[in-house]
Amino acid sequence: MFRAAAHLDLAFQALADPSRRAMVDRLIQGPATVSELAKPLAMSLPGVMQHLAVLEASGLVVSEKRGRSRTCRIEPKVLSQAEQWITERRLLWERRLDRLGQFLDETKDN
Amino acid sequence: MFRAAAHLDLAFQALADPSRRAMVDRLIQGPATVSELAKPLAMSLPGVMQHLAVLEASGLVVSEKRGRSRTCRIEPKVLSQAEQWITERRLLWERRLDRLGQFLDETKDN
Repeated sequence: MFRAAAHLDLAFQALADPSRRAMVDRLIQGPATVSELAKPLAMSLPGVMQHLAVLEASGLVVSEKRGRSRTCRIEPKVLSQAEQWITERRLLWERRLDRLGQFLDETKDN
Repeated sequence: MFRAAAHLDLAFQALADPSRRAMVDRLIQGPATVSELAKPLAMSLPGVMQHLAVLEASGLVVSEKRGRSRTCRIEPKVLSQAEQWITERRLLWERRLDRLGQFLDETKDN
């Protein structure tokens, strides 16, 4: 439970930055090197490496050194866990609204 | 576009803390006063107020002073926007996997 919570902390933290979300967007299309990630962001390689470290710590991205370049890819499990947390709350909220609507309808009939 | 990105920054930032997620969990069940939010968290009122400020800044929660107490409620729109961002990426990822599988199948047949 604690580990799951810590995972979500890191995942949402990683997603709370537009450059990191842009990197996730790029990696959703397929693996990319650090240079390829840096290009559309107009960011220095050290800057990209810092964001990459946050993404890797969260488990959203994994990277691997191949020869002289580092290749990054998305790891969809953590993305799904973050989605699931929000979706569960949204569904609970909608069910609450449905019950409220039903209650108001029943009250109106009496 | 910029405003949407800034909204997502604040929403994911707000969700990146277990106490704030616990407050969202509580408010999904219905409105609550600040004292009611503080109780299960075993947290001081000032501590809860700080977390509440982050949740309000993100638009996930709105609060209103009624008499001597402040009542908080969930604002589902921002939660939906955060969910939508993740869901879109998950679907793109799944489509990519499908295309990859299809490509591998076609290659096998030849």
